[in-house]
Amino acid sequence: MDEAARSILAIDLGGTQIRAAHVSPDLVVACRRAVETRDEEGVEAVIGRICAIARAVRDDAQTAGLPDPVGIGISSPGPLDRWEGVVVAPPNLDGWRDVPLAARVEEAVGLPTFLERDTQAAVMGEWRYGAAKGADDVVYVTVSTGIGGGLVLNGQPLIGKDGSAGEIGHITVDLDGPLCGDGMPGHAEAIGSGTAIAREGRALLERNGSPALATLADGRDVDAALVARAADEGDAACQQILDRAWTAIGAMCAGVVNALNPEIIVLGGSIGCNRPELPGAIRAEIDKRAFPAPAQRVRIEMTTFADDVSLIGLLPIVNERMEERA
Amino acid sequence: MDEAARSILAIDLGGTQIRAAHVSPDLVVACRRAVETRDEEGVEAVIGRICAIARAVRDDAQTAGLPDPVGIGISSPGPLDRWEGVVVAPPNLDGWRDVPLAARVEEAVGLPTFLERDTQAAVMGEWRYGAAKGADDVVYVTVSTGIGGGLVLNGQPLIGKDGSAGEIGHITVDLDGPLCGDGMPGHAEAIGSGTAIAREGRALLERNGSPALATLADGRDVDAALVARAADEGDAACQQILDRAWTAIGAMCAGVVNALNPEIIVLGGSIGCNRPELPGAIRAEIDKRAFPAPAQRVRIEMTTFADDVSLIGLLPIVNERMEERA
Repeated sequence: MDEAARSILAIDLGGTQIRAAHVSPDLVVACRRAVETRDEEGVEAVIGRICAIARAVRDDAQTAGLPDPVGIGISSPGPLDRWEGVVVAPPNLDGWRDVPLAARVEEAVGLPTFLERDTQAAVMGEWRYGAAKGADDVVYVTVSTGIGGGLVLNGQPLIGKDGSAGEIGHITVDLDGPLCGDGMPGHAEAIGSGTAIAREGRALLERNGSPALATLADGRDVDAALVARAADEGDAACQQILDRAWTAIGAMCAGVVNALNPEIIVLGGSIGCNRPELPGAIRAEIDKRAFPAPAQRVRIEMTTFADDVSLIGLLPIVNERMEERA
Repeated sequence: MDEAARSILAIDLGGTQIRAAHVSPDLVVACRRAVETRDEEGVEAVIGRICAIARAVRDDAQTAGLPDPVGIGISSPGPLDRWEGVVVAPPNLDGWRDVPLAARVEEAVGLPTFLERDTQAAVMGEWRYGAAKGADDVVYVTVSTGIGGGLVLNGQPLIGKDGSAGEIGHITVDLDGPLCGDGMPGHAEAIGSGTAIAREGRALLERNGSPALATLADGRDVDAALVARAADEGDAACQQILDRAWTAIGAMCAGVVNALNPEIIVLGGSIGCNRPELPGAIRAEIDKRAFPAPAQRVRIEMTTFADDVSLIGLLPIVNERMEERA
């Protein structure tokens, strides 16, 4: 329960799906709706879908007798300009360049609208209400298609003058390593993300390195889930890919532990939530690569809110940004 | 000038030298004294030298008619317990384990004494009075025997619950890389520090890889300065060692730029201050490995106070910690 907050309409804009819901101060996520993003149809079509889903959730909430939302929060992958509400150039939304999304939605739906990076919303959710409640120094890490993060330090969210602080997946962990989705070499994301695992799986198939993976794929494109399944069924080459991915993620976390001395690392994302060996692998790398005192200090916890973490994190963000604007 | 501060006695405890001086609110470092650390003579002998140099500087200041120091600040390499004033286990002070240095000096000299990590003092000096004055988000990097750092984020020093925040030299930048001085693999320090450059130089000699370096060394042990001199004289193998070191330091900085979105990186330390190509090399890696907005934002500046940075940084630290204690 967040006594100080008022209900909002929360929208999560992802590369695959647009999800929206009514989020109330008791942290209930209600009137959920989702629609495919289909960014290949162009920016205007996607903006249209966002506005439509926002109106639909508002109507559903009214019908259900829920309090009217005071504003809209949109969480989106970066880079973005949170102050101007502009989506700058997200790698997973094809053709989006400097789109004034908040203004467009605000105009169309008629509610104050705020844009925030998805992982910034996530760390806010976990810190205010979830696994990291009460901590002063918090790292949120999401491992899925990419690797993202958000930070709370000295009891304050760290946003940065460009709003890009927290992008810990783009720490170089392997000087001569492969390129990440943004074309930069050696980042943790380029080894530890779902995209990277899938890339290595495809390379393995091309050199006929895993009959097990070939059988599982059966001619379909290889994704991270398939590599993980082959590993779980005992395929050593696929297991090696996962081991390398977890090492990269763990080394990234160890670097963050040395650099920031956080009390807690909260792990989320589709891969972060679904690979039970990952927290242990991160712990092993921290023990190997971080100073004893901060290594012993830091707890590794699973996300409290899982898929809803960004939606819930938008509740305090929208409320606070409305106050700032007022 | 720091109107709010009163004069202090500042001591910098290093692996080679103990330096001490009177630091006044107008940032004048006076009555300097230095003595060799000689840690091989044992902890008690070194503590004795610290107390002796403190008394000598206090006497010198009195003779010179300077204001009496209100307290003593000691900057030391980590890890240390700044709250209890205990030097925990610095890699460059042989045999030092959990030494209650602040209490010992306070008792012997009769002035309130505070211990702070050297790089924490350094970032404080640059942020309050030097290159980073006025910035909210600051990274201080020292490149010398090791690689250390200090952080100011959201307009506040980031210390961390163990006082170890800012140790950015211990970010993993090369998953399978060599061990740093603390025995951890792949850290930037293990490739970019003076110790690492010397190690690679010695390995080069052992495999007869550089006649130029062999001539320069002439039977003496190889250090980083000698490798740098050979590189400057055109030796390609030594240049490669430096290039790799600068790449590691630059990649480390790029990771920090993505993770923290700082406005400024202040470069210090004996190598940081003396290799004019280093800022450019760091900039190149940031441009290659960091997101465009934070990469364009961040300035790379040389330290304002060079060797005196930790001494000057102790001025606000001692003054503030005396207020906290009062």
